[in-house]
Amino acid sequence: MAGNTFGQVFRVTTWGESHGTAIGATIDGCPPGLPLSPEDIQQDLDRRRPGTGGAASPRKEPDKVEILSGIFEGVTTGTPLTLIIYNKDAHSKSYNNLKDIFRPGHGDFSYLLKYGVRDHRGGGRASARETAARVAAGAVARRLLAFHHINVLAYTLSLGGIDAGNLDFESINDNRLFCPDSDAAERMEERIKEVKKEGDSLGGIVGILASGCPAGLGEPVFNKLDGDLAGALMSIGAVKGVEIGAGFMAARITGSENNDALLPEGFASNNSGGILAGISNGEPIIARVAVKPIPSISKPQQTVNLDNEPVEIKIGGRHDISAIPRIIPVCEAMVCLTLADHLLRMKTLDWFPEDFEIDEE
Amino acid sequence: MAGNTFGQVFRVTTWGESHGTAIGATIDGCPPGLPLSPEDIQQDLDRRRPGTGGAASPRKEPDKVEILSGIFEGVTTGTPLTLIIYNKDAHSKSYNNLKDIFRPGHGDFSYLLKYGVRDHRGGGRASARETAARVAAGAVARRLLAFHHINVLAYTLSLGGIDAGNLDFESINDNRLFCPDSDAAERMEERIKEVKKEGDSLGGIVGILASGCPAGLGEPVFNKLDGDLAGALMSIGAVKGVEIGAGFMAARITGSENNDALLPEGFASNNSGGILAGISNGEPIIARVAVKPIPSISKPQQTVNLDNEPVEIKIGGRHDISAIPRIIPVCEAMVCLTLADHLLRMKTLDWFPEDFEIDEE
Amino acid sequence: MAGNTFGQVFRVTTWGESHGTAIGATIDGCPPGLPLSPEDIQQDLDRRRPGTGGAASPRKEPDKVEILSGIFEGVTTGTPLTLIIYNKDAHSKSYNNLKDIFRPGHGDFSYLLKYGVRDHRGGGRASARETAARVAAGAVARRLLAFHHINVLAYTLSLGGIDAGNLDFESINDNRLFCPDSDAAERMEERIKEVKKEGDSLGGIVGILASGCPAGLGEPVFNKLDGDLAGALMSIGAVKGVEIGAGFMAARITGSENNDALLPEGFASNNSGGILAGISNGEPIIARVAVKPIPSISKPQQTVNLDNEPVEIKIGGRHDISAIPRIIPVCEAMVCLTLADHLLRMKTLDWFPEDFEIDEE
Amino acid sequence: MAGNTFGQVFRVTTWGESHGTAIGATIDGCPPGLPLSPEDIQQDLDRRRPGTGGAASPRKEPDKVEILSGIFEGVTTGTPLTLIIYNKDAHSKSYNNLKDIFRPGHGDFSYLLKYGVRDHRGGGRASARETAARVAAGAVARRLLAFHHINVLAYTLSLGGIDAGNLDFESINDNRLFCPDSDAAERMEERIKEVKKEGDSLGGIVGILASGCPAGLGEPVFNKLDGDLAGALMSIGAVKGVEIGAGFMAARITGSENNDALLPEGFASNNSGGILAGISNGEPIIARVAVKPIPSISKPQQTVNLDNEPVEIKIGGRHDISAIPRIIPVCEAMVCLTLADHLLRMKTLDWFPEDFEIDEE
Repeated sequence: MAGNTFGQVFRVTTWGESHGTAIGATIDGCPPGLPLSPEDIQQDLDRRRPGTGGAASPRKEPDKVEILSGIFEGVTTGTPLTLIIYNKDAHSKSYNNLKDIFRPGHGDFSYLLKYGVRDHRGGGRASARETAARVAAGAVARRLLAFHHINVLAYTLSLGGIDAGNLDFESINDNRLFCPDSDAAERMEERIKEVKKEGDSLGGIVGILASGCPAGLGEPVFNKLDGDLAGALMSIGAVKGVEIGAGFMAARITGSENNDALLPEGFASNNSGGILAGISNGEPIIARVAVKPIPSISKPQQTVNLDNEPVEIKIGGRHDISAIPRIIPVCEAMVCLTLADHLLRMKTLDWFPEDFEIDEE
Repeated sequence: MAGNTFGQVFRVTTWGESHGTAIGATIDGCPPGLPLSPEDIQQDLDRRRPGTGGAASPRKEPDKVEILSGIFEGVTTGTPLTLIIYNKDAHSKSYNNLKDIFRPGHGDFSYLLKYGVRDHRGGGRASARETAARVAAGAVARRLLAFHHINVLAYTLSLGGIDAGNLDFESINDNRLFCPDSDAAERMEERIKEVKKEGDSLGGIVGILASGCPAGLGEPVFNKLDGDLAGALMSIGAVKGVEIGAGFMAARITGSENNDALLPEGFASNNSGGILAGISNGEPIIARVAVKPIPSISKPQQTVNLDNEPVEIKIGGRHDISAIPRIIPVCEAMVCLTLADHLLRMKTLDWFPEDFEIDEE
Repeated sequence: MAGNTFGQVFRVTTWGESHGTAIGATIDGCPPGLPLSPEDIQQDLDRRRPGTGGAASPRKEPDKVEILSGIFEGVTTGTPLTLIIYNKDAHSKSYNNLKDIFRPGHGDFSYLLKYGVRDHRGGGRASARETAARVAAGAVARRLLAFHHINVLAYTLSLGGIDAGNLDFESINDNRLFCPDSDAAERMEERIKEVKKEGDSLGGIVGILASGCPAGLGEPVFNKLDGDLAGALMSIGAVKGVEIGAGFMAARITGSENNDALLPEGFASNNSGGILAGISNGEPIIARVAVKPIPSISKPQQTVNLDNEPVEIKIGGRHDISAIPRIIPVCEAMVCLTLADHLLRMKTLDWFPEDFEIDEE
Repeated sequence: MAGNTFGQVFRVTTWGESHGTAIGATIDGCPPGLPLSPEDIQQDLDRRRPGTGGAASPRKEPDKVEILSGIFEGVTTGTPLTLIIYNKDAHSKSYNNLKDIFRPGHGDFSYLLKYGVRDHRGGGRASARETAARVAAGAVARRLLAFHHINVLAYTLSLGGIDAGNLDFESINDNRLFCPDSDAAERMEERIKEVKKEGDSLGGIVGILASGCPAGLGEPVFNKLDGDLAGALMSIGAVKGVEIGAGFMAARITGSENNDALLPEGFASNNSGGILAGISNGEPIIARVAVKPIPSISKPQQTVNLDNEPVEIKIGGRHDISAIPRIIPVCEAMVCLTLADHLLRMKTLDWFPEDFEIDEE
């Protein structure tokens, strides 16, 4: 069974290749009556668009979204929403020289072994371009969450080994990297320039904060909220690690240090990251993801061709230096999709009829 | 939609509470003809049994598994396998004093807010006892994988802040902690004793190694193998972080350092952890999980009762000091279930009829 | 993917073979707070029990159900309910003489070709005994529906070619066949005796009436309520046809005859069977199913053995003459499961937060 | 959970409204390497196009399909196929006069009660236009089946009360109604003309024959092949009844008459319709579906408006007299989708590794 569908109730199927006609997403299960316009979606897409700075690829995609179905007179109808983004600026030919070579760190090798056929144009379905469809679908989920006063925010915690220190969330939009520490952001930009000259690339860490979540989201045992978030975030191409709350630090402290005491006014700390036994507890949900460096680099690399002969490869083309910051709205999208799905799933517990009285029994 | 089912083709549903009549698992989609006996399953269950050492709870559960269906004359029939383990040594009453109090670090609070009803006996469905059913089901998956020469191994990498150094996988069974560094294991045991005296508990890090996996496992885009593994592992109660391959380290190095070069004789390194673009590449699959300290501690803690009044709590009863080592077979089980599922999912790509010739077109 | 799970939100997995240790059902997605006792379930099981009359097999199964999980202090907790029925009176040996022979009209042939292995003891998973687990799970769904004042009733419309005429639903329990025409019921019983002497068996038609359903159940386009009901009912072993509302009669009349006029006081007729465009309209839901004759007959039949040699077979053992009336609670169960699932699915449309105001936009 | 997805492995999601921008289908799970061109799909779409005869609506839709993704160099890649058909000849305004009125026999009433919002333009998602997407997706499934020498054929068995008698399948394409009895087809055409003058409409019965199916398709117990076919066929808007094999006739004969004897050369008859215990047995699969008359008629009808006031309605616009013959390729599509899905599902049973030897145990 193929894996292009996400969610159980708010159910998104994405499709499309980097260098095909279009990419898109179909959302089945978006409830009726939600006010929605293409602009609501465009806003999020614009944040992940390439070509917005020194770390970004110069590929110019307007990434203009159209809603093909599921809307009537400005609100959702309860029928499937199809969002489409046409591919405009795809230079398929620049990939022709790569069609017999496996790029290190890319899916070329594993895809060919899996499918026996290979769409070599820019990675096909394995391209980061696929994430535009996630962002589009995530924007609809974000809209639903907004009415419930749930807000999802991702930001740069670390890039190229430079960590953000004093987090000032007010300043997130003051720099291109969505980093809550503007001083660190400057040093990150310098590191980017440095590495660009070397023909290399950088990884980093994205922080995630979801505030306003009600208690009760998440389903025991295999669809715990943290389990579903981890699966959602790790399904983003470049992600190699996910932490919730105290994360790997929790492995090194004691129970008395890690447990969050309950006080009459609420939890005294939030090492749990807002999730206890897989179910949200009303505290902010906190996660971090490790993002690997972009594998396409112009530095020479050792690889093999289809005949398993050694080849040296230098990847030209238009590539970002780091998946950060463009991965940030993608992380937000996956969290929005997960939360919206669980919010609707939780509705199925409210089975009680209006005249329910337990004493009737 | 409730979340007690795992997998798409090899599909496991677990059920049962810590202090109910029994716990169990139903596997729908185990293919026919697999040789299977209760002993195959018992072997794995015995490894997670409580009461096997200083860090373990003294609750004595024989955890004897019975196969209620799906087997005939020693092989699976292709119909659902139901595995059942009766609860024997459950002391429900020892939880009576806790029934009006929220234990810090436990699901008491979030479960009550979600469901409106609470089974306070030992955590009910949120208890670690639930993982016995995972281990039982995982043992069936492991059996299927064994015929494909796929082996899944988990081990202690770190406990209570003490890290394993020189990993000698031959020595894993030489110590109770399944630690590939016996010297470190001894120091971990000392740390356990120390913390036990303090009435506290410890977290740690589990390493996972799956060898023999064919290339091609995993489905783009939302069911990438790493995504599904992360979701599976994070769905284990105590897990707060998951890394694949280089994991969080990948966030701090450059692309040229992180990319695994391809040589005619294979990959030169394995920072990818055996997974490229979400699909296995034939290298060993490598993961690590962060395990939080057991939340039940006898040290006094601040919490509130159902009336939101402050209460001091000391949790007695029979509790482990660390989820390690008992969580190790649980991690293995979740990896086995994920791999078996993807192994069978991949079969659906082999659609070609025997007489298929593309030239016929 | 195996097919032992039914439903999307109210999700039932059944398991167990006719002559194994036990059969059972696990319900994941039953909401919390539903008052439920074993007696609620036993009641429905008792109605399908064998040995209750001239048409029924003399196999005596007490079919006593136990609830292994998901209940605490008399109400459901929201965690999986596991229902188990142990097999007591299974005479596996009486099937030994059949183990190399394909019984006409049975699944012996198709199962062997599918799975390569065969559990010949009484049909294994293909046995009608499997339906006891459906009835048990259906009883929980019925309980949920009862609180919503939804009532599901099945009855004998035709048996052995004898049709019920004047339907008097008050008299349904006056005869063993749950036939709303007691005179017809008497003639059906005579037909049964006649055919029993001949060593043959009989089919019939079951009518179904679900009253009290709210409008809005059913999901376009592939999970229309009539589509899901048809799939659910046709999944019962002996069923060969399903009609909704006017059914096959609708194929022979005109639009003006078939359309149900809407009047201010409601629909003028119910040819739609309570379902318009796949969604319930608030009228009673009406269906009919065709039940084939029991294939196990003592009359000699032509068949082949595993070596494809011709064999004459006379099936002894304990078999019913007709699947009616025992199939009646099974039909009810499948309708209850379908309606409960759609009732809970509909809850996911109620996404509106308490403070929702469209003018905010 | 919304219901716009069909299938488990070969998984189709359709979307789009009658009078929106476009309709389409996304297929996730179509295996790689399948030769496929837009013409393969167009062929089936052309057969369901409106405006091809006296019974058909004069709405002229070229229904030209485009493949937006999932194809590279003439074969499928294993990634999602998206098929799109733009709506060209939609006269939304002709529905404006209906926007406050519930059309009898239509989904207007049930949709409004379900969703609270209503897309009144031509029925929105409830329109028969939705079936074009099914036909497009079904054409891909048909292509997969063709390589396995499986052929699916639907035809007119009855229309307006006139039954086909001597079935000559060679002559099916000799008449516009795909009726295997050309004499009957002529009388059906006369009946259509007659009823057209009266401003009324007609129902009928479609026969279905799938030949070449291997034994083993279908999954016990809830996804029996007949169960899934019934669900698939009943999910087509106008269908009110489904029979498999002997169908309702089986309810009136005895076991000795209904059972299909097995002879060394094969089954002596096919009352089972090619399905035993829910699993195909290698015989042709036979089904029949009852199609209700088109509800849109120009004859005056009683109905109510949104204010529940009585209204007389005469439906103008461009409507067919009968869903037959245009429903025929839709029935074929649903059967193709069901069979392709089960064909791929069956692959998951072939788990045996190449070196499997049971003696190794």
